Amino acid sequence: MNSATQAQRAMVTGASGFIGSHLLGYLSRAGWQAAVIARSSSAATLASHPAGPKVYTYTGQTSEVVGAVADFQPHVIFHLGSLFLVQHDATQIEPLISSNILFGTQLLEAMRLAGITTLVNAGTAWQNFEGDAYNPVNLYAATKQAFEDILLYYVETAGLKAITLRLFDTYGPADTRRKLLALLLDALKTGEPMSMSPGGQVLDLTHVEDVCNSFLHATGLLLNREEPRHEVYTVSSEERYTLRELVAIFEEVAGKKLPITFGARPYRDREVMEPWQGIPLPGWHAKISLREGLYRLLLTENMAPGN
Amino acid sequence: MNSATQAQRAMVTGASGFIGSHLLGYLSRAGWQAAVIARSSSAATLASHPAGPKVYTYTGQTSEVVGAVADFQPHVIFHLGSLFLVQHDATQIEPLISSNILFGTQLLEAMRLAGITTLVNAGTAWQNFEGDAYNPVNLYAATKQAFEDILLYYVETAGLKAITLRLFDTYGPADTRRKLLALLLDALKTGEPMSMSPGGQVLDLTHVEDVCNSFLHATGLLLNREEPRHEVYTVSSEERYTLRELVAIFEEVAGKKLPITFGARPYRDREVMEPWQGIPLPGWHAKISLREGLYRLLLTENMAPGN
Repeated sequence: MNSATQAQRAMVTGASGFIGSHLLGYLSRAGWQAAVIARSSSAATLASHPAGPKVYTYTGQTSEVVGAVADFQPHVIFHLGSLFLVQHDATQIEPLISSNILFGTQLLEAMRLAGITTLVNAGTAWQNFEGDAYNPVNLYAATKQAFEDILLYYVETAGLKAITLRLFDTYGPADTRRKLLALLLDALKTGEPMSMSPGGQVLDLTHVEDVCNSFLHATGLLLNREEPRHEVYTVSSEERYTLRELVAIFEEVAGKKLPITFGARPYRDREVMEPWQGIPLPGWHAKISLREGLYRLLLTENMAPGN
Repeated sequence: MNSATQAQRAMVTGASGFIGSHLLGYLSRAGWQAAVIARSSSAATLASHPAGPKVYTYTGQTSEVVGAVADFQPHVIFHLGSLFLVQHDATQIEPLISSNILFGTQLLEAMRLAGITTLVNAGTAWQNFEGDAYNPVNLYAATKQAFEDILLYYVETAGLKAITLRLFDTYGPADTRRKLLALLLDALKTGEPMSMSPGGQVLDLTHVEDVCNSFLHATGLLLNREEPRHEVYTVSSEERYTLRELVAIFEEVAGKKLPITFGARPYRDREVMEPWQGIPLPGWHAKISLREGLYRLLLTENMAPGN
């Protein structure tokens, strides 16, 4: 018997996304066997992922998800699949509900039918605007909360053990999401002036390697307990800076000032000024400091000072 | 100007259902103008409803709901539309999410776009198994809770004022749902023996006329306040009996014993033994006692004693 057949099996949804793609590599290095459920549009790309996951295709049918979970018999499912939208318009209601609620419910139903009971679910700290127990920043966050309500039904009736990790901002290499650090890297490359909000919002940036590590840590907690229960934890870097402070640290690590004008743009509607505290994932701490993470990012982009 | 053009306008979803259909009549008698949004399968039936509602057809598109709400400009929307299932199987996941979450979200989005801010939403006390703040009896109840989370997003961002009325059991004439009283009426008609559970579960039965009245009462509360907020209230008859006691009252009102064997069937999985208390709708009380409601029902069916 080779080691592959003895390996623990993990199923990943949202594997073509930023975190999911890193998680596949992380699982592979940790000796796990992985499978993904993916829409046909990303199935081909995932089939050529270096981690070599088994790929199940999803076109919208419950039966496809039921079949995939029953066939692969994972020890744990990492549910990262979602449609992320900061702001929505009326044409996006249907895809938001389909991706963020329907697909997840199909997955839970598949778990129930196959007797699979361990789930790590990706949530967002945007479910907790102004530190409230629940107050969604946007419709995306509301659909994430709605999914957790459905999840509770399966905890109560199908013996599910689940942890939802509410993530703050994440960063790392190969990030195509055009978030803050991508814009800073662009400004560093091009030297073009950049307009920003006043910059007083506090950010909590977790490196994607740490995020992957937190998912495995949560799995360990789940595999070592018996009772069905849904727990919600935050994954925090424990380093929180205002946007202005973050830019200053970035400039310091990069060894170069950026042409940024703070206050040239207004804050976003429902801008999160102070991230939620929540309950941190027990026994887990981030390993990669912001300075180290930024330096690694600059190395990847061949923009570290001295390179 | 005739009275119709001055009338208040109400839009009703789920108007082909038991409560919705009664609500159309109730609104008409109270001088309201009503419109419904209905699937094409029930649009024809609704067009011939004696209350003469305006009918908008829905085939699944957000744009249809947006168009209907913008065109009718209702003062209040009564959202009763849902797919009701005591137990589900895997093939029903998609219709459950579509009917109970997607359609409702499309309605909220339509309200946001049209600047309509008053909503009375039908929930179920099944969201509160064992008296918990949230513990769904079944997947149906979980989807109702999930919808309320989406609703909160629109309260926070679109100034929505909403009341969710969590209903217990309801009854009245022209009920095609095959619930308890329909079975008792059958047993009364046919005299055929009937097997029941041990009958210790406590029931709270509200007459459909009272339910309609509670919806109008909630509307009054909403139209008289300014702040966006979502409130959750119960609609209770304030008469609670065990199933055994209820059958005895039914027999008394009907003047005839029924051939029922209690304990011949087990309780249902997750049977609600004691209904939730919750917070009763402020300033509202049921007007129709159980004995009166049962007597009216027997009259309708030509089965009242002496008839």
